[in-house]
Amino acid sequence: MIGSRFVTAVMVAFTSLGPVWAQAEDTTMRNDVQMVAPALAKYTRDRLLGEVWKRPGLSARDRSIVTLAALIARDQTIEMAFYLDLALDSGVKPREISEIITHLAFYSGWANAISAVAVAKDVFAARGIGPDQLPAASPPLLPLDGAAEAERAARVSKQFGATAPGLVQYTTDILFHDLWLRPDLAPRDRSLVTVSALIASGQVAQIPYHLNRAMDNGLTQPEAAEVITHLAFYAGWPNAMSALPVAKDVFEKRRH
Amino acid sequence: MIGSRFVTAVMVAFTSLGPVWAQAEDTTMRNDVQMVAPALAKYTRDRLLGEVWKRPGLSARDRSIVTLAALIARDQTIEMAFYLDLALDSGVKPREISEIITHLAFYSGWANAISAVAVAKDVFAARGIGPDQLPAASPPLLPLDGAAEAERAARVSKQFGATAPGLVQYTTDILFHDLWLRPDLAPRDRSLVTVSALIASGQVAQIPYHLNRAMDNGLTQPEAAEVITHLAFYAGWPNAMSALPVAKDVFEKRRH
Amino acid sequence: MIGSRFVTAVMVAFTSLGPVWAQAEDTTMRNDVQMVAPALAKYTRDRLLGEVWKRPGLSARDRSIVTLAALIARDQTIEMAFYLDLALDSGVKPREISEIITHLAFYSGWANAISAVAVAKDVFAARGIGPDQLPAASPPLLPLDGAAEAERAARVSKQFGATAPGLVQYTTDILFHDLWLRPDLAPRDRSLVTVSALIASGQVAQIPYHLNRAMDNGLTQPEAAEVITHLAFYAGWPNAMSALPVAKDVFEKRRH
Repeated sequence: MIGSRFVTAVMVAFTSLGPVWAQAEDTTMRNDVQMVAPALAKYTRDRLLGEVWKRPGLSARDRSIVTLAALIARDQTIEMAFYLDLALDSGVKPREISEIITHLAFYSGWANAISAVAVAKDVFAARGIGPDQLPAASPPLLPLDGAAEAERAARVSKQFGATAPGLVQYTTDILFHDLWLRPDLAPRDRSLVTVSALIASGQVAQIPYHLNRAMDNGLTQPEAAEVITHLAFYAGWPNAMSALPVAKDVFEKRRH
Repeated sequence: MIGSRFVTAVMVAFTSLGPVWAQAEDTTMRNDVQMVAPALAKYTRDRLLGEVWKRPGLSARDRSIVTLAALIARDQTIEMAFYLDLALDSGVKPREISEIITHLAFYSGWANAISAVAVAKDVFAARGIGPDQLPAASPPLLPLDGAAEAERAARVSKQFGATAPGLVQYTTDILFHDLWLRPDLAPRDRSLVTVSALIASGQVAQIPYHLNRAMDNGLTQPEAAEVITHLAFYAGWPNAMSALPVAKDVFEKRRH
Repeated sequence: MIGSRFVTAVMVAFTSLGPVWAQAEDTTMRNDVQMVAPALAKYTRDRLLGEVWKRPGLSARDRSIVTLAALIARDQTIEMAFYLDLALDSGVKPREISEIITHLAFYSGWANAISAVAVAKDVFAARGIGPDQLPAASPPLLPLDGAAEAERAARVSKQFGATAPGLVQYTTDILFHDLWLRPDLAPRDRSLVTVSALIASGQVAQIPYHLNRAMDNGLTQPEAAEVITHLAFYAGWPNAMSALPVAKDVFEKRRH
């Protein structure tokens, strides 16, 4: 189980012994929310933090990654520092956060990544996270799955090579022969980030390929379902509901 | 006519006697817009404020709700304080604004609601709006339309119960057996908020169910058409145009 | 070639002689990005600024317009000042920027334009750009292509005139008989802005009409393909990939 030690720590923080997280939530937002929308304060405490985050289908580490991906994909910085801290407390490494931001420059847009940098910089500084904990700019890459990648490249090239040859070439060169092979974020987590960003920004058409890839990379079907459930809260019910028929179709086709 | 007294007041403010609104617009934005985009200043004055808001198809109170829903759904805080003030001046109650924000936590995403809280807090404070004017966190709920809800729950459960059981359960428990029954925002207005948010964020796939629900809850067809027209300005023409074929289809099917 | 003098100037700035742009990028962002995501710093330097912007398929002036349209359409102000300066350095006139913002009020939403105004105001002030360099609020309009516009108006009216007569009327009166005929942004550039905004915000359904219109207005197919490639970086790969099948279809149909 990835980061189970940290999950436990967060669970404890959630409940009785270590109210660190609850305190942070208090100081940043609880008063304001209570003064404008008491019901929202109640739902946040009882349902979102008190229940959704504790559901067994997805670890707190994974939920942190999903939440960060959603916030970056939607360019919402208002609670990003809080969730960056929570991610670090839940076992997400600084180098993984660095890679998540870099990854989403390509999958959500450059400015989204730059906005996240502006927040992460302060969180890293407050924790004394320096360059030694960050990924190298050009590390040795993971091995390429040549057969699968050749199939993908051929398919996309046949489909769009004549329409936008530059984009097709960049997709191969920068994304699948480079970004996806960077070693400081596991392929399964990179897929988790990608799928979360797609669902969170309503990019339904791109979900099938990346959900299949995520499951090839080790994301289980119950975890995928739980990602959608989690994102209902962070990206709104409509984005979650629009992802459901697509996910259902992917799940069914993989069964055969 | 809901809030007709306030509509009249706003109409007056728009035109001759009470230039309160025009002044607010002046001080916050008019100079800046004029210095960068004189045409935009002209369109704002002559078309948007001077014409669209005065169209008889939708009350100023409803237009305020539609505009707020669009701004929250799109996470745009830049003019939110102005439109919160306008909503309060147009007859939207503080408790209704509180519920609109809570409602959109679920329909637009948690961070959208938190961003709105940060703005509303100051607007409420400036007007001396305290806890006594806000909804209870857990008030007695409106009665459930058991038959319609059972039909909805059965349909969604059959469709997606095996795909994402957690999300399906939350949809029933938190949304339709709880949030939608909170008494401080009328079901018709709750629907107006939902439909506006869907159109404003391009969630076309979710419009049919909620537009039908809105019309079941009392939104008339001319009002729905006027909501789309109003949102062309606040969410951009493409979102309005993409909503049109869906709305047309809903309107036609309800005729038979 | 539009603005080739400025393209050259920017090319020079990119490479060796005039490191003005590189310096600006340094001071604003380079340190922060380096401290959080060294890989993102590398991709920005080597790929985005060092390669994509220099591709011959689209001028630096056009790339500035595409980038600004994407940032405004997505309401991302974080690097907007930088790209406004770059646009002005690349040959985009202040009056053209003014019109781009006004145009996107209608195509992306009013608040998007107001956010852009808040940034552009400071950029204009720093450069001493005054009212004399801005468009008139109500200038003499370009001549209307009566036949094409009559065809468009009749088609939309037949399709949606009964659904939302107000919106259909505004589309004719404000957009196609007014906004599109304003003389301070060439129709081809206005189309470039519109298509870029649609792609950048995932408005796939509205791309066919406006991509055809853009090509009727002079945008070449290779330029259109390069716009999509450029936007992969600024609006994320999923938006670019979702635009590809639509663009492919438009390109093929125009060949016959």
